[in-house]
Amino acid sequence: MRYELYYWSGVQGRGEFVRLALEDAGADYVDVARKRGDNAMMPFLRGKQEGALPFAPPFLKAGRMVIAQTATILAYLGPRLGLVLGGLSAEIYAQQLQATVTDFMAEIHDTHHPVAANLYYEEQRPAARKRTQAFREERLPKFLGYFENVLTRGNGRQALSRHSYVDLSLFQLVSGLDYAFPNAMKRMQSRIPHLRALAERIAERPNIAAYLASPRRIPFNEDGVFRHYPELDPAR
Amino acid sequence: MRYELYYWSGVQGRGEFVRLALEDAGADYVDVARKRGDNAMMPFLRGKQEGALPFAPPFLKAGRMVIAQTATILAYLGPRLGLVLGGLSAEIYAQQLQATVTDFMAEIHDTHHPVAANLYYEEQRPAARKRTQAFREERLPKFLGYFENVLTRGNGRQALSRHSYVDLSLFQLVSGLDYAFPNAMKRMQSRIPHLRALAERIAERPNIAAYLASPRRIPFNEDGVFRHYPELDPAR
Repeated sequence: MRYELYYWSGVQGRGEFVRLALEDAGADYVDVARKRGDNAMMPFLRGKQEGALPFAPPFLKAGRMVIAQTATILAYLGPRLGLVLGGLSAEIYAQQLQATVTDFMAEIHDTHHPVAANLYYEEQRPAARKRTQAFREERLPKFLGYFENVLTRGNGRQALSRHSYVDLSLFQLVSGLDYAFPNAMKRMQSRIPHLRALAERIAERPNIAAYLASPRRIPFNEDGVFRHYPELDPAR
Repeated sequence: MRYELYYWSGVQGRGEFVRLALEDAGADYVDVARKRGDNAMMPFLRGKQEGALPFAPPFLKAGRMVIAQTATILAYLGPRLGLVLGGLSAEIYAQQLQATVTDFMAEIHDTHHPVAANLYYEEQRPAARKRTQAFREERLPKFLGYFENVLTRGNGRQALSRHSYVDLSLFQLVSGLDYAFPNAMKRMQSRIPHLRALAERIAERPNIAAYLASPRRIPFNEDGVFRHYPELDPAR
C-alpha cells in the first residue's frame, strides 16, 4: 500500500511523528504537501473529499480511508508496519502513551502560544514567559519523569515490544525539547538516563539515521511546535 | 466483566466521558474513588500496581489490564459495549473524533488555566480573560462547527453507527459548554442544529436519562473542566 501523508510542508510539527514511523518501517509513502503544496490538503479539510473529515493536519490516506489525528494514525499504522508487537495489551498501552505524547505536545505548543494560536508569539510574550516558567518547573519534569518511569518499569516495558512507534515519538520529543529548551534539558539530564539512551538508540537505527541525514528532515524552526526563544529558556 | 473506573470523586471532568459510555451500555462497573476515596488511585499512579502506568486519571481496570487516557479507554470499550459498530473504518473514525474531543477539552480547561494548571484561577485572571476571548471568538466556533459538519456529512456519518460513544461525548461537550459559557453558546445556537438535536436525543436515552437524574451525576462545578465564571462569558 502506498500511503499519502498530508501535513504542512514547512515544519516538522505533529506530522513528524507519523513521518518517523513511515521512514523507520521503510514504508512506501508520498509526502503530499511537500510535493504539491499545502493547498493539496484543502479539499480534505473543506469536506470536498470522500472519507472521514479531518479537523486539522496531519492526516493519512490509506486506500479509501482518511485518518486524522497523530495518535489515531499511529494506532492504525503501528500493527501494519510492525511498529507495535505483542497483541491487544501492547497496542492499547502504546495508544495511551501516544495520547500522552499528544497532550505533552499541546502543552509544548502553548508555551509560546498561551493566549491564542492565531496571534503571533510576539503578541503574547509576557504570558508566554509565565507559562513557560511553570512548564519548565512543573510540566517538563512531570512528563519526562513519567516516560522515564514507563521505560524502567519491567511489566510496563514488556507490554510494548522491544521497538515501537512510541519509541520513535519519544526520540522526537527529546530531540525537539533539546532544540527548544537546551538549558532546561541539561538540568533534566541526570533524571532521564533511559530516555536519553532510547533517543540515542533510535537515532542510530539505519532508516532513521538515513532519514535524519536527508533533506526530508526539515530543521527545527520557529514556525513549528518546538521553538527556541532564549528568553523562555534561561541558563538558570 | 466488572470494570473498575478510577477518577477524581468530586468532579465530572474527563472521567465523565467514560462514565457516560458505561452507563449508556448498562455495563457492570465500580466507580472506585467515589466508593473508597481518591487515595485508591495512588498505588496505580505511583507504579505500585501491575499493568500499564497511567499518567493521570481517568483510568480503567479491565481484568488485568490498566488503560489510561479517555480516548484510549473509549477506543477499547467502544466495540465491547456495542458503542461503535461497522468495523475498522468506523472504529478509526470514532477514535479520531474522540481525539479531537480530547484536544478541545484541553483548550476548554486552559480558558481558566492559561498560565499553569497548579495555580488557582484567581492567580491567572488577566491571561484567562484574553485566552477565553480568543476561545469564544475562534476556537469554540471552529470545534463546534467541525463536529456539526461531521454530523451533516453523509459519508462521514455513515462511517459511524447510528449511535456511538462519540455521540455521548458530544452530548457531554454541549452540556458542559452550556454550563460554562451560556451566552457564547446562545450565540452559536443557529449554527449547530444537528449537534443540538443529537444532545437532546442522547439526554432522552433511557439509561442516560436515569443516570442524569441519579446522584451519580455530580453537578458541574468550579473544580471541574467546565467552569462558569461570568467574567469569561460576557452577554455581548
